[in-house]
Amino acid sequence: MSRTPALSRPARDPRDSVSEATASRLSVYLRCVATLEDEGAPHVSSQELARRFRLNSAQIRKDLAMFGEFGIRGVGYEIGALKSHLISILGLDRTRRVAIIGAGRLGQALADYGGFRSGGFRIVALFDNSGERIGSKSRSGVPVHDVRLLSELVSREGIEIAVLTVPAAAAPEVSRQCWDAGLKAVLNFAPVRLDPPADAHLKNVDLKINLETLSFYLARA
Amino acid sequence: MSRTPALSRPARDPRDSVSEATASRLSVYLRCVATLEDEGAPHVSSQELARRFRLNSAQIRKDLAMFGEFGIRGVGYEIGALKSHLISILGLDRTRRVAIIGAGRLGQALADYGGFRSGGFRIVALFDNSGERIGSKSRSGVPVHDVRLLSELVSREGIEIAVLTVPAAAAPEVSRQCWDAGLKAVLNFAPVRLDPPADAHLKNVDLKINLETLSFYLARA
Repeated sequence: MSRTPALSRPARDPRDSVSEATASRLSVYLRCVATLEDEGAPHVSSQELARRFRLNSAQIRKDLAMFGEFGIRGVGYEIGALKSHLISILGLDRTRRVAIIGAGRLGQALADYGGFRSGGFRIVALFDNSGERIGSKSRSGVPVHDVRLLSELVSREGIEIAVLTVPAAAAPEVSRQCWDAGLKAVLNFAPVRLDPPADAHLKNVDLKINLETLSFYLARA
Repeated sequence: MSRTPALSRPARDPRDSVSEATASRLSVYLRCVATLEDEGAPHVSSQELARRFRLNSAQIRKDLAMFGEFGIRGVGYEIGALKSHLISILGLDRTRRVAIIGAGRLGQALADYGGFRSGGFRIVALFDNSGERIGSKSRSGVPVHDVRLLSELVSREGIEIAVLTVPAAAAPEVSRQCWDAGLKAVLNFAPVRLDPPADAHLKNVDLKINLETLSFYLARA
């Protein structure tokens, strides 16, 4: 056994190299920097960024340093360059094609949801196993396909991310179909634990954490 | 102007005293501690907690210390006590009653969603302004009321949290109805900026951040 396991891990293992929390913070930084850009600011220091958006300046410096130093001492980060850099780190410099599996109410709602289908992501397909739903379209025009065509359409449509909005009982089997179809990224809304292969990434959506945050503030008020 | 603005702020201002990021981390700690309790562990140190769940041990100690020291040096935190303490900090020691405003597909889906209506939260009502929806029930039996009855039902039903699943264009007006009804906590799914009064707390759901995290891993793979 190596005495430096962190270093001995393969740097390309997507789940080991950077934590999900770090990746989420990069998205938050991108939103903050985009706001500052809209306001016309030319530069921002990690301290200003932290103060303005209630972040941790040491954490910002540490997170950004992981992807190469590019701040200027005493000046900070050039806003346009920082934004481009974050877009590139997050892989948002090209559109990612997304499928939603489970064309029930949640799946249909997400297919048409403005907070989901904008900038950088394109929902190109819904999948379902119900004959009533297959062949229909969501309100915004996303077609509902037979889930048996998943593998074929993943290749043909260049789908990279699947969003699971199937019932919890169906999610393990459907997630296996996703891995079999060659998908490496799944966003799971089903309240059940799934087991991704080592080279894939699974993210579980935890909506209740939002209610818990509100409960926290209610308890302190 | 005070030279110590952080101290001069009223401690009871729910938005200034503790950041949303801290509140979210407390929820994460609770999930980790519940997992350890299921496994039968009696104690956990901040280092073990950090290693096991890929968290930051200094951050854990700092976050928990904000709410009173209760770890034992060299032993760590007693799991049962830590769990109870987190439940109490998060205000989850009693059920919070929740209303969903907007009984479209997203609202209906959330009303029946296992990842949302369980442990600590009870969805007691849906609200809408459509005559077709008012008087109906979600699949799990949540009644749809006329949104004009919001204020009356908030008092009568003891509703503390509103979830907004209305279209973006309607959200500003509906959020005003929430504040007028005396609600102090709103979870907003509409992709639009809302302006809460000083004594209320608004949390915007950002589902796209989940897709961005997956994109990050795809870009690095």
